[in-house]
Parts: sequence; structure tokens; C-alpha cells
Amino acid sequence: MLLGAVVLAGGRGTRFWPLSRRSRPKQVIDLTGQGTLLASTLARLDGLVAPEQRLVVTGPDMEAVVRAECGSATVIVEPSARNTLPAIAWGVWEAARRGADAVVVLPSDHHVLEPQKLREALGLALLEAERGALVTLGVRPTRAETGFGWIEPAADGTVVRFVEKPPQAVADELLSGGRHLWNAGLFVFRIDAFRAALAQHAPGTAAALAALDAGAPLATAWPLTEATSLDYAVMERHDNVRVVPLDCGWSDVGSWPALDEVLPPREGGAGVAAEVVSLNASHNLFHVEGKLLALIGVHDLIVVSTPDAILVARRDDAQRLREVLDALDAAGLARYT
Amino acid sequence: MLLGAVVLAGGRGTRFWPLSRRSRPKQVIDLTGQGTLLASTLARLDGLVAPEQRLVVTGPDMEAVVRAECGSATVIVEPSARNTLPAIAWGVWEAARRGADAVVVLPSDHHVLEPQKLREALGLALLEAERGALVTLGVRPTRAETGFGWIEPAADGTVVRFVEKPPQAVADELLSGGRHLWNAGLFVFRIDAFRAALAQHAPGTAAALAALDAGAPLATAWPLTEATSLDYAVMERHDNVRVVPLDCGWSDVGSWPALDEVLPPREGGAGVAAEVVSLNASHNLFHVEGKLLALIGVHDLIVVSTPDAILVARRDDAQRLREVLDALDAAGLARYT
Repeated sequence: MLLGAVVLAGGRGTRFWPLSRRSRPKQVIDLTGQGTLLASTLARLDGLVAPEQRLVVTGPDMEAVVRAECGSATVIVEPSARNTLPAIAWGVWEAARRGADAVVVLPSDHHVLEPQKLREALGLALLEAERGALVTLGVRPTRAETGFGWIEPAADGTVVRFVEKPPQAVADELLSGGRHLWNAGLFVFRIDAFRAALAQHAPGTAAALAALDAGAPLATAWPLTEATSLDYAVMERHDNVRVVPLDCGWSDVGSWPALDEVLPPREGGAGVAAEVVSLNASHNLFHVEGKLLALIGVHDLIVVSTPDAILVARRDDAQRLREVLDALDAAGLARYT
Repeated sequence: MLLGAVVLAGGRGTRFWPLSRRSRPKQVIDLTGQGTLLASTLARLDGLVAPEQRLVVTGPDMEAVVRAECGSATVIVEPSARNTLPAIAWGVWEAARRGADAVVVLPSDHHVLEPQKLREALGLALLEAERGALVTLGVRPTRAETGFGWIEPAADGTVVRFVEKPPQAVADELLSGGRHLWNAGLFVFRIDAFRAALAQHAPGTAAALAALDAGAPLATAWPLTEATSLDYAVMERHDNVRVVPLDCGWSDVGSWPALDEVLPPREGGAGVAAEVVSLNASHNLFHVEGKLLALIGVHDLIVVSTPDAILVARRDDAQRLREVLDALDAAGLARYT
């Protein structure tokens, strides 16, 4: 069974501004000082998926910055962003063309503290997938997160249902119940099982793959696909979906404050800096690559420096970055966004 | 009566770190975005002292950065720092050599909001000086400052006494009394009156000038001078000292928070930046030249960015910069100081 990988690297995301930009999304910036999330994602496949079987799907406007992080993996460029289903389907089709029998699908912008545990879980998932199931990896939750989808597994590992971004009270219950897992967007399946599921749940996308099989150009096949997510179109509807628990120090690194889970502690907080001097400062998060950072009497701040912009924000206001970007656009300062 | 100027530009000062450095002291950095304090000091002399009569005294390790700000003024370099008396005495001697009859002495690192008012006060002071007095300009106080020297004038403009850095209770009294003025280090005197005062109060320095007159090299004369301040050695002891009140929006710009008096207000506070975006942020002070600054939910901070360092400090902790520099030295990071 030859295993291919489809790595999704088309995401934009403004939540790491000013480090991330329209032209330089989260997956290709070095948040941790130890390489980009995309390069780390590919490195995690070592020993599991050969480099020539790795496909990275991205958009035309970020092709160059993505390609720079991909080593000998193949970069394929979507004609347009249509959510994850078309991107995965095309990736799977390309993997099949390269002889793969099964694929692992991975987001490119997550962080994993223990890559070996991820590889072990992917190995287990592959065993399940070989028997024909569409398999998702479910992260053991560490908080009552309302921003994620949750997975309810049966005792035998089949998925009972997906719970989309629950309200807080429900999230509290799901966490305390101890059974539910987070949907991390990590999938493993046999290619023939995936194509059968598409035929059943996403006929447009199935038709697109058929058109590609028949030699149609991508530009012709692409508009046939359903512009939706794999989760929504297929995983939540299919009857043979299984989940493998994952406990590998996973983080979706969704915002500056989430870097706490990822970065080693430093004087004054956590972050990337050439040097830090801190006097009565704590729980700050910083990214001032190559510079000395001096913190005096400040707590719970986010401090980010890039060649053209500086952000100083209260941690609790991290979600207001969106407003900053809107204000910049409105002020004719889109060059900073 | 030909007027010369002696501008004192040998000060170091760490209070504007990381913008100011050992090798780039306060007077040669652009704190306001409108030029350096030294260049502004010289520009204030326009119409009063001809450029060829302007002497800028500095130390050997900052000669180059000082010279760059001096236009056609003459830079003279002290063999070593020995406080203000030797620097002024040597400047006066050089001014005399260029034909000056009187000199105005100015610090190079203060800010003046209304230069015309300073020139008017210097004109008045010159009238007093012509009659033989050593004249100091006294700034009308705006707060009970304990870090300055205060001047007690008699009704006729003679100085009754100097009050060195008073305790808070005394400063409160001096302010509310309404008569006392701040000693701003601005002096005007006839050169012959100055030399006579030296002979009386500072015989070593008088001997040094005599040696220079006799053709001795500066290196020989310099060690003869008293290493002390003009205020302490001469002004506080001399019997013919007068004061002219000054009301010109003067600031000694002694620390980052003092820039409030100097900088125009901007979104989120006051400071230098290419652009500012501010959401619920106020009373911050910033210097991020050429960069966009985004502030979210932060108040009363100092934010400074240079090519190699970033400072984020509570305003109230500005005086702890000294500790940062000590910590850097102790950690072998003196290259940042």
C-alpha cells in the first residue's frame, strides 16, 4: 500500500498580523523561531510518506512563498480557493496519478509537540483505512474550546457524530464527559474509498475527478467541484467513518495567545527574540526576530515587530486584530495588511 | 560687541535607550522626528550668533556623530570629560581667539517650543552681561521639580542664591512662592568678566587659560582645570550674578515621559511613527521611526524600536532603564548599550 500525502497550504489567516500578511500567510512564517509550520508539517512525514509522494496544495498568489518551504515535495496550485473539498480531491487525484493507494491529508499550519506520536496515530489510522473506512484523527481536548468542531466516537472507534463549533455550555459538557475529541482536519483513507464516498456525497467533485481522468484540463474540472469542506460534504454524512485518538501536543496555533502552547518560556513571557531583558514583566508574548527585547513592568502583552510594522496589544484583545486590518484598509494603508 | 556661542555637546545620558546609545547620545538622536536636539540648538542661534562664532564642545568618542549635526559650526574635542567648567572655559578661550567679546553658553540637548522668545531673553541677558555681570537664564517653573537646580532672584534681577535639587517639600514651596526659577544651564557673559571670575573662584582653570594664552598645548592646560561645574565653581560663589527670566516652552527632555511636553499628540498617545492605528489605547509614548505602529488596549506605555532593539515599558518605570543597561552589561551584551 503506497501512501501519499496531501498537505493543505492555501489558508490565509490574519491572526498573526503583522508577521503574517496577505502575501505571506501563517503557514509560511516562522512563528516559533524553529522553521515555518509548513516545513515542520512536511518534516513530520519523514519515514511515513516519501518526498515524491507529498503534494502541497496552495493558491496562485502564495505559490512562491509556499514553494520555498516545500523542499522536494510537489506544489500544486488551485485555480481558485473553493474550501477544502476541491483541494483535497485534486490532491488525491494527483496522488493516485503518482501511484498512491492511500493518502493522509494534513493542514499545513498546525503545531505538533511530539511528531513521533502523530506518526504512530497515522499508522493506526492507516490500518483502519485499509479496511475501507474514512478515518479522521481526533485530538484529545485540553479545554472547552468553542472554536473547534468536536467528534463523538463510539466505543469501537466509529464516529457517532460531528459537533460543529458548540456553544460554551455544550463545550463544557463535551470536555467533562471525557469521550469527545477535537476535529483537527487530519484524515487518512484509501483512494478508492474516498472516490466512492465522493460519488455518494459530492457528485460534482466526483464528476470533476472523472473529467480529469478523461484528460480534461484542471480549469475545466475545477468549477464542477462543490465549494465546501470535506468535513461538511463527506465526513459528516458518510456511514463508514472512524476516528483514531491523537495525543501529540497538537495546537492549531490559532492566534498570538495560542503560541503559549508552542513556545518555550523565556524571561518576561514566551516568544522569539535575539535577547530578552525583563524587569517585573510576565506572561508577555513576543516575536521580535533578531532583536533585543527589553520589557519593564508590563504583563499580558503581545509585542510583534516586523521590518515595517509593530504591534503592541493586550493579550485579551488579540481577536481585535481583524479591526486593525479593516482600519488599515479603510485608511488606504492596505500595503501593511 | 561680537557674540560667540559655546554649545555643550559632551553629555552621554542613557535615558533614551534604546534610541540613545553610548556612541550616539541624546543630543544627536532625532527624538521628535524634526531633527536632532543639537541641530535645533544651533538653529536657534540664527540671527544672534554667526555660524563661524559657534563652538560645539564634545568628547572624542562622539566627535563624528556630533560633527554630522553641526553644519558650519566649529567642533572642538575635549581631551577628557571634566564636567562643564573646563568645557566652557576652553570654549570661551576659543571664542576669544576668534574675536568674540561675549559668549552665550547653551546645553545641546534641550528643547525649546518658542525659539524667538529664547532669542529675546538672550538679547536681554546680553544687555546685562555688557555691564559686567555673569548672567544665567531662569526658566519659569511649571512643576515642583526636584531634579533641577532652582534660582532665587531678588526684585532687581540679581541672584540671591542657587538651590540645588531640593527635596519635594521645598520644591513645592519654591513653586508656590512664584519667585524662583529653574537653572537651565544657559549663560551669557563678557569674556573678560568670565576670566576675572575664574581668577577669583577657579584658579586652576584660570591658569589653564593662561597656559593656552602662552601657547601651551591643550593637553598640557587641560589637567590644570577644576573638574567641576560652572554652577558650583563660579555662579554660586560670584557676587555679580544676574538672572533673566525665560518663558519659551523649555524642556530638558530628561526622559521618555518628558517627550509629552515636546511631541504633538497622535492617535493612541504621542510619538514618532510612519502611521499609527489605535484601538482603545491612550497616553502611550512611542518612537518607531519609519514603521506602522498598531496599539490595542494599551495605555501609559513607552514603545521604542531601533534596528537592533525594542523597548516596551510602563511609563512609570522609565527610570528603571538604568537597570536594563546594567543588566545588559552584566550579561555580556554591552553591544546593545
